Amino acid sequence: MSKSKKIAILGASGYTGAELVRLIASHPGMEIVALSGDRKAGMAMREVFPFLRHLDLPDLVKIEDIDFTDVDLAFCALPHATSQAVIAELPLDLKIVDLSADFRLRDPKAYEEWYGKPHAAVEMQKEAVYGLTEFYRDQIKSARLVAGTGCNAATGQYAIRPLLEAEVIDPDEIIMDLKAGVSGAGRSLKENLLHAELAEGMIAYNPLKHRHMAEFEQEFSAIVGRPVTLTFSPHLLPMNRGIMITAYVRGEAEVVHQTLAARYKDEVFVHVLPFGETPGTKDVRGSNFVHIGMVGDLRPGRARVFAVLDNLAKGSSGQAIQNANLMLGLPETEGLMLAPVFP
Amino acid sequence: MSKSKKIAILGASGYTGAELVRLIASHPGMEIVALSGDRKAGMAMREVFPFLRHLDLPDLVKIEDIDFTDVDLAFCALPHATSQAVIAELPLDLKIVDLSADFRLRDPKAYEEWYGKPHAAVEMQKEAVYGLTEFYRDQIKSARLVAGTGCNAATGQYAIRPLLEAEVIDPDEIIMDLKAGVSGAGRSLKENLLHAELAEGMIAYNPLKHRHMAEFEQEFSAIVGRPVTLTFSPHLLPMNRGIMITAYVRGEAEVVHQTLAARYKDEVFVHVLPFGETPGTKDVRGSNFVHIGMVGDLRPGRARVFAVLDNLAKGSSGQAIQNANLMLGLPETEGLMLAPVFP
Amino acid sequence: MSKSKKIAILGASGYTGAELVRLIASHPGMEIVALSGDRKAGMAMREVFPFLRHLDLPDLVKIEDIDFTDVDLAFCALPHATSQAVIAELPLDLKIVDLSADFRLRDPKAYEEWYGKPHAAVEMQKEAVYGLTEFYRDQIKSARLVAGTGCNAATGQYAIRPLLEAEVIDPDEIIMDLKAGVSGAGRSLKENLLHAELAEGMIAYNPLKHRHMAEFEQEFSAIVGRPVTLTFSPHLLPMNRGIMITAYVRGEAEVVHQTLAARYKDEVFVHVLPFGETPGTKDVRGSNFVHIGMVGDLRPGRARVFAVLDNLAKGSSGQAIQNANLMLGLPETEGLMLAPVFP
Amino acid sequence: MSKSKKIAILGASGYTGAELVRLIASHPGMEIVALSGDRKAGMAMREVFPFLRHLDLPDLVKIEDIDFTDVDLAFCALPHATSQAVIAELPLDLKIVDLSADFRLRDPKAYEEWYGKPHAAVEMQKEAVYGLTEFYRDQIKSARLVAGTGCNAATGQYAIRPLLEAEVIDPDEIIMDLKAGVSGAGRSLKENLLHAELAEGMIAYNPLKHRHMAEFEQEFSAIVGRPVTLTFSPHLLPMNRGIMITAYVRGEAEVVHQTLAARYKDEVFVHVLPFGETPGTKDVRGSNFVHIGMVGDLRPGRARVFAVLDNLAKGSSGQAIQNANLMLGLPETEGLMLAPVFP
Repeated sequence: MSKSKKIAILGASGYTGAELVRLIASHPGMEIVALSGDRKAGMAMREVFPFLRHLDLPDLVKIEDIDFTDVDLAFCALPHATSQAVIAELPLDLKIVDLSADFRLRDPKAYEEWYGKPHAAVEMQKEAVYGLTEFYRDQIKSARLVAGTGCNAATGQYAIRPLLEAEVIDPDEIIMDLKAGVSGAGRSLKENLLHAELAEGMIAYNPLKHRHMAEFEQEFSAIVGRPVTLTFSPHLLPMNRGIMITAYVRGEAEVVHQTLAARYKDEVFVHVLPFGETPGTKDVRGSNFVHIGMVGDLRPGRARVFAVLDNLAKGSSGQAIQNANLMLGLPETEGLMLAPVFP
Repeated sequence: MSKSKKIAILGASGYTGAELVRLIASHPGMEIVALSGDRKAGMAMREVFPFLRHLDLPDLVKIEDIDFTDVDLAFCALPHATSQAVIAELPLDLKIVDLSADFRLRDPKAYEEWYGKPHAAVEMQKEAVYGLTEFYRDQIKSARLVAGTGCNAATGQYAIRPLLEAEVIDPDEIIMDLKAGVSGAGRSLKENLLHAELAEGMIAYNPLKHRHMAEFEQEFSAIVGRPVTLTFSPHLLPMNRGIMITAYVRGEAEVVHQTLAARYKDEVFVHVLPFGETPGTKDVRGSNFVHIGMVGDLRPGRARVFAVLDNLAKGSSGQAIQNANLMLGLPETEGLMLAPVFP
Repeated sequence: MSKSKKIAILGASGYTGAELVRLIASHPGMEIVALSGDRKAGMAMREVFPFLRHLDLPDLVKIEDIDFTDVDLAFCALPHATSQAVIAELPLDLKIVDLSADFRLRDPKAYEEWYGKPHAAVEMQKEAVYGLTEFYRDQIKSARLVAGTGCNAATGQYAIRPLLEAEVIDPDEIIMDLKAGVSGAGRSLKENLLHAELAEGMIAYNPLKHRHMAEFEQEFSAIVGRPVTLTFSPHLLPMNRGIMITAYVRGEAEVVHQTLAARYKDEVFVHVLPFGETPGTKDVRGSNFVHIGMVGDLRPGRARVFAVLDNLAKGSSGQAIQNANLMLGLPETEGLMLAPVFP
Repeated sequence: MSKSKKIAILGASGYTGAELVRLIASHPGMEIVALSGDRKAGMAMREVFPFLRHLDLPDLVKIEDIDFTDVDLAFCALPHATSQAVIAELPLDLKIVDLSADFRLRDPKAYEEWYGKPHAAVEMQKEAVYGLTEFYRDQIKSARLVAGTGCNAATGQYAIRPLLEAEVIDPDEIIMDLKAGVSGAGRSLKENLLHAELAEGMIAYNPLKHRHMAEFEQEFSAIVGRPVTLTFSPHLLPMNRGIMITAYVRGEAEVVHQTLAARYKDEVFVHVLPFGETPGTKDVRGSNFVHIGMVGDLRPGRARVFAVLDNLAKGSSGQAIQNANLMLGLPETEGLMLAPVFP
């Protein structure tokens, strides 16, 4: 362990921060040397997250009190907008995986349009590599700053990207119906996140302006080579972890399946089910795996793709560690092969 | 109350049977005089459903032991296939509301295709009126046998029928994404209905052959005047009651909204939300109400309709009572104005 | 309906306020004429609680804008401490049912001890009648101000009061283990009430200073005629509605059962199960019923009593309406016979 | 890895079997060479448990088709009663960890009394070591057959055993109130385990004859040196994993806390919280940890101990692997240091 990479986690008092700690705790090549939590500085991690009680962790401190000299990589699990300001002040040679939305969009105008104000670190925005590992692997290896994807955006891209790349579906006819668990909204005190409001029911929300739309548009347009948009309908479900995207596409069902199966056959974390089978979110809960199912339609020329992942793991912190592994020269899957927890 | 209509419930040991009892218990114009439960004959209802302990109810008996002489109407909440055999043997002058799937399809061939065997009461199949009250009100008033709709089929039709009738959407471009709670599957001992399997996760299921498809096809084709099919993707959610259909259609969003609002403005149980608002299943839980929300799309010419209802109430037993009210000459809303239970 | 009693609800934007609206909506002898919601004044009730969309209700206003001239009775569903200040300013001839904790304790010193500051309306504190209907029925009929009980305190008292009154258990050996759903904590934005924190797990909380202890002590001491205390262990469960108290007592099990059965045999809302049977919270959900089960112990001289009720209904708003019925000269059970909603 | 111990899992199609696979999958010193599933023989594990899809596992076979020649240890996760018959036929030199109830009771009469029929392998019953690792560590190291404890029985013993051993509580005054998640009941098709029955509510069950009582009596009597019994009240909660025992004892609270803290200070998996703090089940979910909280009581001489663990992990399969590690000469904590999964 003496050669463990030294890791700082900025924003360790939220769910993605805690998930990073959980995963790194059994990662043989990483060691946590600093944890920040602005409002909770001075507290022990076990006070903020008693489930981490068994671990020997540094106490939470303010970011300005961290000595980054020997830190190999920092995970930034700070709120959107905060992240860009903090990262702009970090040492220029520090490797960073950012889990916020701040560096996902490459185009400053798109950022301003979707987030409502100009970006505060435009130069770094350009430098940042989009963190969808299976599609940006080479750039990530040599990146200094990687922008973790939106959890919903990741799920949808696993379903659709190979189909656009292989030109087997119509890029103008994509519909995505999202079913998302509640931890994606973070540990924030909002009425609609209360157990009494959410349990035993579900809602549709934000059908026009969900910010993960911007990622789909950026990425799909880049693949197709012209502006592409889509229909995206988010729904909030009474479960803590898990995302399913049901994607409705135009293309030959068997070709769609073959394309997905071929694209992911060497990917450790992405599993394409046999044709006609559909996945469930619990089959990936707590893990870094993606399951993709595919069925046809009674009408020829149409297909449906169902992709599931755990929003906190593969959708955020697991993805972040996968990227960090690449950036640090560690085996890509190290620390990430934990089986899902079922039931 | 001396003039209460006398009611028999066949198949009172399942969820829809119990829901009928719950609702009739506070219905001023109905009185339960017989309850059947084949395997539980001889038991008191409070033994089968302790939540009904406070009610003075007849014990469960076998159907053949019921004297139908003074019964005004029988609700049939028996399993599919069983229902047609039982109903064929009931007195010919008995009014019947059937909650099974047995009489929903008017075409014997369609029945055989979707249910895998010939219908055992073909004549009655023809006579039966489809029980979607707001659309078959007049026929239901004079019907002897009303076939309750599928709960999912009802939800989708509330979203789509007025749009097809008004010809404001393309009938060949309908996609329905279904999110359904688990009580729609009944009190049956199946592995995927276990709490440990379902809670904290969700699955897609039966994407090609869900039998409620047959109802959509029958009804939509009848409206349009030629065969119409659609894409229908069911998902099972970790909640007991509630259905949401997210329908993706082609049409002008504002016209779609105006059409829905106009169609339902005099319907007591169907509420169309202001343009751009989306509904939640808990807002109708335990009640006979339908909430319909409608939003546009970033791409012109597309719209989304979100419809929610409680599968056991408006989707089954509430609808059945609404129809029975009509058949018995009672006010249509009698016993059905209970507010939803939230949270 | 022209003779309906005119009702105001102060604090209608919380869960107990909404539950009052739900229940009164189908109450034949009450009519809501005013709703207050301080921070939400000016909003329609359907905006605060979309599940009430079908009702024709007055908009929320500030309390000072309500004209109480024709109001027959006001329900006060305000936060603790706020309630006493508001009630002190209401017309002196207005009947009031308070759902807060402010008037539950008769002794100003006890109030100060448990709530941490002096009572602001000491005279009214003395006048208030404790609202456990089945035990204070006569005083409630003639009361101007009734103090609704704590929901947990009600549950425990249903289990224990008759046993102390009949002197069949040892008052110094009472242990109560509480399992409570989350809506008892209200619609408040606290981290431990988030779905992500609570769902799929449970916690013990506040084992020494839960304020409902004060009610147990006050009431049990009054019955026994000397100071009585007990052990009370609250646990928060991943469910929205429902309370179970498991009470461990010393006494002969069969005598305990006979005492409970005899005490409640004429009470419409309190059902004692056959000896040896245990209850479940879902069997009373959404209703005004209490189920009490009783079993013995392998060791003679010990018994266990299990009492369940719905914290928002019989534990708060249903109880409040039951008391209001008595205060207004209406039948005690009017509007309260709704069956539980299961599943 | 070439020196991995070769493991067979008999009864791999249930929840404890699947949990063994999950944990062994990341265990550096074990390798699964055979999986049995009687009714599912011939199936791939990913068909029975899709969450294990990413693993390269042997298919399920019948037990009689397993070649035990090179197997180092077999986990027996078969149903009660089946287990004893199967184990009696296994090679006599095979190390076995049994997860059923069959070998937990040392006294054949006690077995017959609690399980309703004579034991079929009385000699092995005597030989079996009770698998509560922290208290039977030395015997387990040299055992051939270890009997995994009941999950509830384990939880209660962690709370109580040190207190009886240190004689700081009255052995005749122990009350245990159990709150248990549903996976402890297995993947069995029972009505009360359905999501619709359990979610959003809780029940008390089996208050007199829960079989884990027998383990408490056996173990506590052995410590005290005379017959000891207790009050044990099980409750089933709407969550999949997790157990809390709330134990009511007579003793000095601070002494109780000190005794527990001292007893467990060197135990890796058992954490005693600071005096006055209470635990939650989610803080140990998916892990092999036990959290124990302790509070006093308003009445001197009384104390409450709250113990939580994950029934499938530390309560069954995690414990089994901990014992197997000892039996195989591996480090006791190997493969078991995974952090809980929260939220």
